[in-house]
Amino acid sequence: MGRPIQASVFVGTSLDGFIARPNGDLDFLPPGGGEEHGYGAFMATVDAIVIGRNTYDKVLTFDEWPYGTKPVIVLSSRPIDLAPAPGAAVERMAASPSDIAARLAARGAKHVYVDGGFTIQRFLEARLIQRLIITRVPVLIGTGITLFGALPRDIRLRHVTTRQYESGLVQSEYAVVT
Amino acid sequence: MGRPIQASVFVGTSLDGFIARPNGDLDFLPPGGGEEHGYGAFMATVDAIVIGRNTYDKVLTFDEWPYGTKPVIVLSSRPIDLAPAPGAAVERMAASPSDIAARLAARGAKHVYVDGGFTIQRFLEARLIQRLIITRVPVLIGTGITLFGALPRDIRLRHVTTRQYESGLVQSEYAVVT
Repeated sequence: MGRPIQASVFVGTSLDGFIARPNGDLDFLPPGGGEEHGYGAFMATVDAIVIGRNTYDKVLTFDEWPYGTKPVIVLSSRPIDLAPAPGAAVERMAASPSDIAARLAARGAKHVYVDGGFTIQRFLEARLIQRLIITRVPVLIGTGITLFGALPRDIRLRHVTTRQYESGLVQSEYAVVT
Repeated sequence: MGRPIQASVFVGTSLDGFIARPNGDLDFLPPGGGEEHGYGAFMATVDAIVIGRNTYDKVLTFDEWPYGTKPVIVLSSRPIDLAPAPGAAVERMAASPSDIAARLAARGAKHVYVDGGFTIQRFLEARLIQRLIITRVPVLIGTGITLFGALPRDIRLRHVTTRQYESGLVQSEYAVVT
């Protein structure tokens, strides 16, 4: 049997590695997500989204629900609004990354999009992420919520490819070496 | 009059932004600096090197003195060994980044290489760095000495170019927007 489920990260960061300011603000990212850099194509390959509570709260402030009708799992120990937009399919889970991955695999999910700083870190630490697609925005912001965190040991990566965009975005794709 | 002196950073980091492990170890970098990625060509354009005390102490453990006969300024409030190798031209300074830049400019230096985490951060904060050349090694190490630090305000950058190497190194060059 192959690996039951694939999980990817697709995220924008400042050059100094922050995915948000300390208060969660994303104002340093280009407006509207910036120049097209593959987000739509990536999302088309995803059949479930796993995000942390803070990311969910942030997404709720957006003008539009960005996930359409795809299943969105929000990791939270507290109750959440399960109907943020018409057609939205939101579910709350409070479990370990491996338990969540197993549950999604059992439902037939093949490719999961993991988002949010703390959630990405937990899944990376549990060795449940296979691919990282990181888009660097050309700015240093000094402080904020970091993409990566402490690790019990090194995680080796294989560089797949890097794309550069007119607006200054640089997107690198890595596979986690198991 | 134009800007009196140019200062650049040329540095390798883990994908999570560390230039060294917490104890200064560089074992996560490829042996011998890895695949040729422009260090020699860069060094040929440099006429002085400014490093912090910790970087100097680390360089002293290398098999070879890496700076030849180029002037090396070590930032330290304590005395240092000024003759680490035959031909080495080492000088100690304990002054502000702007004072050091002015002193080097007065001596005719045109392009200074600034290295070492804390030293890079001090020069960036003083707006004395014009160019950043960052080479990412495909590994996450979790903790260590960070390349970047806190800033009083954002520093906007212009992406110049990104090069990718067979071994997985990705090198991005940025100009600081003034």
